[in-house]
Amino acid sequence: MTMRVFHDGPLVVGDDVALASDEHHYLRRVRRARAGAAIEILDGRGGKVVASLVRIDDRGATATIEQTIEPVTTPMLELWLGIPDATACLVAITSATELGCTAIVLVRTAHGTAAVPSAARVDRVIRAAMRQCGRPTPPEIRGPIALDALLNAHELGCGAFAWERLREDSPKNRRGASEDEPISPRLLVGPEGGLTDDEAMRCRARGMQALGLGPWTLRTETAVTAGLGRMRARLSPTS
Amino acid sequence: MTMRVFHDGPLVVGDDVALASDEHHYLRRVRRARAGAAIEILDGRGGKVVASLVRIDDRGATATIEQTIEPVTTPMLELWLGIPDATACLVAITSATELGCTAIVLVRTAHGTAAVPSAARVDRVIRAAMRQCGRPTPPEIRGPIALDALLNAHELGCGAFAWERLREDSPKNRRGASEDEPISPRLLVGPEGGLTDDEAMRCRARGMQALGLGPWTLRTETAVTAGLGRMRARLSPTS
Repeated sequence: MTMRVFHDGPLVVGDDVALASDEHHYLRRVRRARAGAAIEILDGRGGKVVASLVRIDDRGATATIEQTIEPVTTPMLELWLGIPDATACLVAITSATELGCTAIVLVRTAHGTAAVPSAARVDRVIRAAMRQCGRPTPPEIRGPIALDALLNAHELGCGAFAWERLREDSPKNRRGASEDEPISPRLLVGPEGGLTDDEAMRCRARGMQALGLGPWTLRTETAVTAGLGRMRARLSPTS
Repeated sequence: MTMRVFHDGPLVVGDDVALASDEHHYLRRVRRARAGAAIEILDGRGGKVVASLVRIDDRGATATIEQTIEPVTTPMLELWLGIPDATACLVAITSATELGCTAIVLVRTAHGTAAVPSAARVDRVIRAAMRQCGRPTPPEIRGPIALDALLNAHELGCGAFAWERLREDSPKNRRGASEDEPISPRLLVGPEGGLTDDEAMRCRARGMQALGLGPWTLRTETAVTAGLGRMRARLSPTS
């Protein structure tokens, strides 16, 4: 699997860069990389290059930048996440990063927890996900914001919300009201305990579609990942 | 959240059942349940009832069965899983259980690992998932079987395979060749390192569709969960 490191500086083809100690440790101790190995370097802000390790020993690692990797344009896709416990929150953020969410909005709902993981922890899991999946830009993290304030800020076209109590016995419901029409690319997933009936009603009143993911109670992180997989199929290329 | 326990015996409305020591421990120590609490009891073979805890103390727990919960019919949905490392394998099995997979087939592929988690470990994570999500029947676990043997056994209509190298710049590819047509409800997900180009070619030759889940390299468990979320939208009610 591709070895990827971060380098906080300009990435210019032909330059040699000395990697920071965390990245040196990762390459030498975790991945056991040797001189000559091909790696990728991310600057964490969209830059991504192919490089070659020219030196790696106990003192440090140096790589020569060989080629720029052209950025991929990905469509807007937002996760609105009713704040679950910290572990589930960080797993959901990891999946949403891998699956190309452009923004993750932490949302206060009736059953959610009050505390959100620290910005430093969120940043760490996002960087780990970027290193793993090769995505060059992090998702934007917003919130916490109350559900009603968020719905009011998007009067039309809020997208879809995961809803386990959706009756799936009619094809129309199982597939969503209009599976073929593009919808606003925003998915709301409730915390453990889900959204309340009243919250679901307010979502519907703002034009959100209920998205059924089967008859069983999903963990928050499963609903996030499965729901985003569903949403991807409905993104229009330019949205 | 609903408290669920297993009871290996007939579940007859009106009967009192003495719960096994694991289940007693779960209710008393993990969930801190008290007499009078409503619980659900699964027999692990499809039976599911609502019950009321009539006694719970250090010596044991007894519940009175009040009502049968009618089974939900769920459509066939198979996960074909290129065997990843044990942790990813167990997470994938958990998600697939929650998302209603009727069978999980462990598949030997070029990049997969040779060892599969023991049947006892697999059984434990499936029971934990059933307890969490309320599903009354476990998925069937099959394999390990070599990819080619599996493809040969399903000459037509093998379903879809997750394929990260799919060009997603055309709506046709992003949405799959025929998002609206029902396909065979089987999803193949490769292990860490993915399927090889040659394996993907053999899948296509057997009529499998490539399913794109974005431009980044997904962890196996993310691809399983997101891919199953995509497949659900395409299940026909009777398949």
